[in-house]
Amino acid sequence: RMATEWHKERELQARLRAINRAGVQLTSTRHLEPVLRGALKEALSLTGSTAGSVMLVEGDRLRIYVAEGLDERVLKGVQPKVGEGIAGWVAKTGKPLVLRRGAVYKRSLSHPSPERAEAACCLPMKVRGEVIGVLNVKGKEEDFTQDDVNLLSVLASHAAAAIYNARLYERLERRVGELRALSEVATILSSSLDPKKVLSLIVKHSLSLLKAKRASVMLLEGETLRVVASKGLPRGASRAVVRIGEGIAGTVAKTGKPMVLKRGERHPLSRSRSAPAAISVPLEAKGRVVGVLNVSERADGGNFTGDDLDLLMHFARQAAVAIENAELYREIRHLFDGTINALAAAIDARDPYTLHHSERVSKWATEIAKEMGLPPEEVEAIRYAALLHDVGKIGIPESVLLKPAKLEPHEFALIQKHPVIGAQIVGTVREFHRIIPYIYHHHERFDSTGYPEGISGQDIPIGARIIAVADTYDALTSDRPYRKALPPEEAAWELKRAAGSQLDPEVVEAFLRILKRQGIKI
Amino acid sequence: RMATEWHKERELQARLRAINRAGVQLTSTRHLEPVLRGALKEALSLTGSTAGSVMLVEGDRLRIYVAEGLDERVLKGVQPKVGEGIAGWVAKTGKPLVLRRGAVYKRSLSHPSPERAEAACCLPMKVRGEVIGVLNVKGKEEDFTQDDVNLLSVLASHAAAAIYNARLYERLERRVGELRALSEVATILSSSLDPKKVLSLIVKHSLSLLKAKRASVMLLEGETLRVVASKGLPRGASRAVVRIGEGIAGTVAKTGKPMVLKRGERHPLSRSRSAPAAISVPLEAKGRVVGVLNVSERADGGNFTGDDLDLLMHFARQAAVAIENAELYREIRHLFDGTINALAAAIDARDPYTLHHSERVSKWATEIAKEMGLPPEEVEAIRYAALLHDVGKIGIPESVLLKPAKLEPHEFALIQKHPVIGAQIVGTVREFHRIIPYIYHHHERFDSTGYPEGISGQDIPIGARIIAVADTYDALTSDRPYRKALPPEEAAWELKRAAGSQLDPEVVEAFLRILKRQGIKI
Repeated sequence: RMATEWHKERELQARLRAINRAGVQLTSTRHLEPVLRGALKEALSLTGSTAGSVMLVEGDRLRIYVAEGLDERVLKGVQPKVGEGIAGWVAKTGKPLVLRRGAVYKRSLSHPSPERAEAACCLPMKVRGEVIGVLNVKGKEEDFTQDDVNLLSVLASHAAAAIYNARLYERLERRVGELRALSEVATILSSSLDPKKVLSLIVKHSLSLLKAKRASVMLLEGETLRVVASKGLPRGASRAVVRIGEGIAGTVAKTGKPMVLKRGERHPLSRSRSAPAAISVPLEAKGRVVGVLNVSERADGGNFTGDDLDLLMHFARQAAVAIENAELYREIRHLFDGTINALAAAIDARDPYTLHHSERVSKWATEIAKEMGLPPEEVEAIRYAALLHDVGKIGIPESVLLKPAKLEPHEFALIQKHPVIGAQIVGTVREFHRIIPYIYHHHERFDSTGYPEGISGQDIPIGARIIAVADTYDALTSDRPYRKALPPEEAAWELKRAAGSQLDPEVVEAFLRILKRQGIKI
Repeated sequence: RMATEWHKERELQARLRAINRAGVQLTSTRHLEPVLRGALKEALSLTGSTAGSVMLVEGDRLRIYVAEGLDERVLKGVQPKVGEGIAGWVAKTGKPLVLRRGAVYKRSLSHPSPERAEAACCLPMKVRGEVIGVLNVKGKEEDFTQDDVNLLSVLASHAAAAIYNARLYERLERRVGELRALSEVATILSSSLDPKKVLSLIVKHSLSLLKAKRASVMLLEGETLRVVASKGLPRGASRAVVRIGEGIAGTVAKTGKPMVLKRGERHPLSRSRSAPAAISVPLEAKGRVVGVLNVSERADGGNFTGDDLDLLMHFARQAAVAIENAELYREIRHLFDGTINALAAAIDARDPYTLHHSERVSKWATEIAKEMGLPPEEVEAIRYAALLHDVGKIGIPESVLLKPAKLEPHEFALIQKHPVIGAQIVGTVREFHRIIPYIYHHHERFDSTGYPEGISGQDIPIGARIIAVADTYDALTSDRPYRKALPPEEAAWELKRAAGSQLDPEVVEAFLRILKRQGIKI
């Protein structure tokens, strides 16, 4: 008897060593799936069983994560509530349960007949007293012994620690990935100063960060929130207007606090009929709520987590700053454009015959520059230069400027100074360096007989050659004290005549193409 | 004999169970320190030993992390190289070493005499075949048995897995913390559009993110890199200029690739005499290198890690965008200011007597607004309004504007229209709504006898009342066709006289305080 006992002890010892080895291996594994597979495999080999599964607690249910030797059909359906059935009881009580061969257990959900009832063992997996799952083994000829149960319990403890670690590791790794993505996105967001683009980037990237299907940005205008960009919203919702304090978004805007809605939860404030998982966070810039960012419907159908909320809050802060910056930039650009226009209008206003002249020349010059395929920043420079081409006329007395009779030579000399004066005025603005030559040379002629320098052909900067054509055309098509405005067709004909002498033929050609497209017969 | 054996087996079994429990507990612990303490404690109680230590491999050395029952003095000095001494041999070979009582081992670094030589056991801690540390136990009366060694080896495996997990967890947790900090910092950075502030924020936050002592931002100007913001640099270095392609920073700027220097490593490109740990990363915006961000000297004296580099690269991308945005904003603001100035100068230039008048009025008005404690955005609005207060004069023919004789009533009516015309011109710019009333009302009088509305006192907007004082003072102190300029003292006296009738007494008072401070006797 002693010898048998001794052998039993030796065997138990070997099995304990095996569990120790398995424990080390399991806890050295970084990802959930191999941990679960390893734990199950070890449990089967330790007890000589052929079938089993590992179930994990998810909310109030148990879900089978890995299984061996079990019917696929059975597996799909099995998602018992904690407290229901054998595994549910084990999960609830935290105690192991040993099922004897041929015995019927009334807790069983599958109710096998006695002749089909197998021996089985069902063990809780606990981390710091909390059940995180259940380890099931069966498919063994004999019943499970107390030693089997004890050893499986030890293994279940190792498995529980390993599962916990793997989940934690996976969560942290995912979080590092998300936060790195957040940083990339922040860079992309703040790289744009175009308000529309910023808004659509916010929608796009809030979806990708949270792996969700719907998102919308609402901005506060006075007391109302208006959807200004969205994706995946049902028809109508994308034009929704909400008063501050009303509904989910209105409440978030009012309180400045985020709201997280669980899937299927009908929130008293919500107006939507369906109830997808959703998060709404405030868009805050400089301590002031400027809008709300809503994200809903996770792609995997689940609920949003605390990590998701944290991520979206971080993103929303960056989004709000990006919106603010784009707005500031847009405003100051508007202000700048407005001032240039005011300046141009002021110049034109001195002479009733040149009312809105600069504006029109700028319009034509911009179109020609585009037609000639110049790069955008060149087109922009030409637009400004054309608006300001006559700014130097401010220095010419009205007695000369508005003289209805023929000018005296000294008066004409004064007029000829206006491109120079204009370049001087504009030259005080350092960033205008690009447009100065366009203003300075806009009265040069292609054949070198112009002023102030008398240069010719390609020596005249392209912007100046373009402004010359636009300027000439507008002069021809406007009333003058000494003649009526020419109709466009005649003016076009005049331009053609001046091509090569006064004007650059290529620029004239480009302009005539524009006029033709507008239905003017040439 | 059988009974003794059996008891031995029973005891061994109990110890194996204890190790299993210890293994689960160790691997469930999240932080390094308690894992190490727990492992040592377990090793001592398992073998009935009283002293021991856990050493971890750091680079090519072993460092004692926790110890029990050992001389403090001994501990501090002990940092053997891998391969040196007992522990070093174990770390190198990955094999346990058992020291017998009274025996002398030539590998020992402390060379105890035979009568002082204790029994000891030294075990490698391995993760996936790699030795990460050594577990030492001693202070036991008898020698260690083979069972002791076997059991300690199992425990050492659990400990190794737990140490690895705890380190990984700590690293990931730190990384999550750093990346969250990065996101906060990105928001702070992009919230500023002031280039100087952005640069100092970059220096400040690169130090806090990397826990380092020195940082500098260098920007590319043509072919040279110039330090534009720094902290902790030695004298002289903060004004350093480096050509692209030269030295560490110049190479980073040229290649667009980061460089990491280890502490004490004399890099062939480095010009610094000391060799602290350092990282230099490119500042890239829109695919173009605009500068270099250098960080050096970790606060803990260590080297920068791959995580540090990744963090700084992310930060540098956001920093570059923030610099770019602030620059763009500054440029367009300059452009705007320049245009307003050009417009003001153009107006003043029509009348030789009013040259630079608007500029001076703007300067005085701004000072008064500040003196009266108005909020910054109000001061700014008054500055612009004062610059443009006479913009409406553009609509008045020079025959009237420059008439040296007394004006006819219809001419005077025309002059009186200039605030209205000015408000109309400025009114075309939506964002100028704030300054329109200041221009419109700048010729109102405090006693209601002004134009265009004839309103009085506080009904006149504050900006208009301030411009009126500045405008009057500048007119008094300028030459006119009909009189010479008054000296400041007399002009101030005139203002005082007009306070309450033409001008707001409070505004006049504020202005007189300014003049007094400038040494003008009032």
